[in-house]
Amino acid sequence: MKQELAIKNVLDTWHSNISRTDTLLNSLTDEQLQNEVAPGRNRGTYLLGHLTAVHDRMFSLLGIGQPLYPHLDNPFITQPDKAVADIPSVTDLRNYWKEVNTTLAKHFANLQPDEWFQRHTSVSEEDFAKEPHRNRLNIIISRSNHVSYHLGQLAFLKK
Amino acid sequence: MKQELAIKNVLDTWHSNISRTDTLLNSLTDEQLQNEVAPGRNRGTYLLGHLTAVHDRMFSLLGIGQPLYPHLDNPFITQPDKAVADIPSVTDLRNYWKEVNTTLAKHFANLQPDEWFQRHTSVSEEDFAKEPHRNRLNIIISRSNHVSYHLGQLAFLKK
Repeated sequence: MKQELAIKNVLDTWHSNISRTDTLLNSLTDEQLQNEVAPGRNRGTYLLGHLTAVHDRMFSLLGIGQPLYPHLDNPFITQPDKAVADIPSVTDLRNYWKEVNTTLAKHFANLQPDEWFQRHTSVSEEDFAKEPHRNRLNIIISRSNHVSYHLGQLAFLKK
Repeated sequence: MKQELAIKNVLDTWHSNISRTDTLLNSLTDEQLQNEVAPGRNRGTYLLGHLTAVHDRMFSLLGIGQPLYPHLDNPFITQPDKAVADIPSVTDLRNYWKEVNTTLAKHFANLQPDEWFQRHTSVSEEDFAKEPHRNRLNIIISRSNHVSYHLGQLAFLKK
């Protein structure tokens, strides 16, 4: 019972962060998203691609599937902003973001409470036996905070 | 057992966020902290005061004590940046931040697992009976994300 409450708390925060980000993105024009969030900092498009690529990696990290858009890894995780000239259009990035999060949400809804406390795939079985907190739930907590971090920056794109 | 793992996951993320913020603050001079994080946006000092005031409110919200610095509420929560001319010095703000988080950490360490699933004080007993996820643990998750949001902005103070 209590473990289910904790899972609900964590998932509610995740969904709330995605929803706040959606609201912000919907309020920004494509032109605004192509601006730097602050002088000399990442562009909105880079942060959108970065968040999408990081979330797309969660399928394999959680052991629930394969990435939908692995071609986003290089321009938005490996490389910094402006290092890759040919990035997807803003329209494509908006669609990728939506698709990745919608698909994740479906998987999350199907996981049973106990499955949230199973290991994620970047920890070995041996290490997990010693460090059982390195579970799937922890990934959601950590990635929620990652969204919040960049959402605070994306908010500067609003006039 | 599983509820304790969930609590550990949440508290580890909280402490990690505080630690990351400390590291950033320690790397910034008082002069840098007095700058706006981006043109026309909040100053670093305002965000530091804001985070401190929000964390100071957690004592009563969690039902574990009284605020240490209630005079921070008006200039850093009620009012926007630059509305109050006479704010504490950067030195004082740095000390308040440290003191509030250190005191919170001591209280957190003393809470028993079951106590994390008790209601926080902004929800009534009647509502809590229907919405048991409005517990203390949820406050930590929510405030962790709040730190992350502003940490992403404070990071822009670095050259």
